[in-house]
Amino acid sequence: MSEISAEERESGTVFAPKFDSDGLLTAVVQHVDTREVLMVAFMNADALDATRKTGIAHFFSRSRQTLWKKGGTSGNTLAVSQVLVDCDQDAVILLVEPAGPACHTGARTCFYRELDCGALQDVRT
Amino acid sequence: MSEISAEERESGTVFAPKFDSDGLLTAVVQHVDTREVLMVAFMNADALDATRKTGIAHFFSRSRQTLWKKGGTSGNTLAVSQVLVDCDQDAVILLVEPAGPACHTGARTCFYRELDCGALQDVRT
Repeated sequence: MSEISAEERESGTVFAPKFDSDGLLTAVVQHVDTREVLMVAFMNADALDATRKTGIAHFFSRSRQTLWKKGGTSGNTLAVSQVLVDCDQDAVILLVEPAGPACHTGARTCFYRELDCGALQDVRT
Repeated sequence: MSEISAEERESGTVFAPKFDSDGLLTAVVQHVDTREVLMVAFMNADALDATRKTGIAHFFSRSRQTLWKKGGTSGNTLAVSQVLVDCDQDAVILLVEPAGPACHTGARTCFYRELDCGALQDVRT
């Protein structure tokens, strides 16, 4: 991908993802119906390609340094309905239909606690 | 903050943010009423402290390498209603009431385009 200007990146129709120094974009996963944020992960170019080709969310695991098909083991895959891209193209939202709980803990969303007066409180509903 | 076990980090009540190698957490900003994702940014310990003390969202600018009060210049601040924390405590959601457009382009959200058949389409409503 050749370089494009900041103005083109913000207002144009060319998808020119701006990977960070580690080669990653931030990916926010949001339920397509409820708009609940289910998880946050990172995508490298391979994860982005695999997601676009298969329609199933793939990420890059920073801890394992490898491509990661979400739900590849658990079956709790995320079918991608829509991909939104932010102004400077360094973050995406995946609007998904989840096959099961998004969190490896079994919770529907990874964001099951709120920070309240310095401590975490469970807010699962 | 002393080290805690992965199990305590996931299931406990102790807030022990897991900053990455650059000292950052990922912060997803979501409108408290509509649940629209408005922007994604990063927080270091100072940004987190400033946000918790003031109730106004502060971030760390990766490009400028400095603490950044969102809306400090434009007036488009984000009043934080609730902070959600994810399972491994390396990402937060700020549920906010925005004083104006969240995006520096003037858009309500930074995510004003969708990726469709390889090109970006404006989805502003």
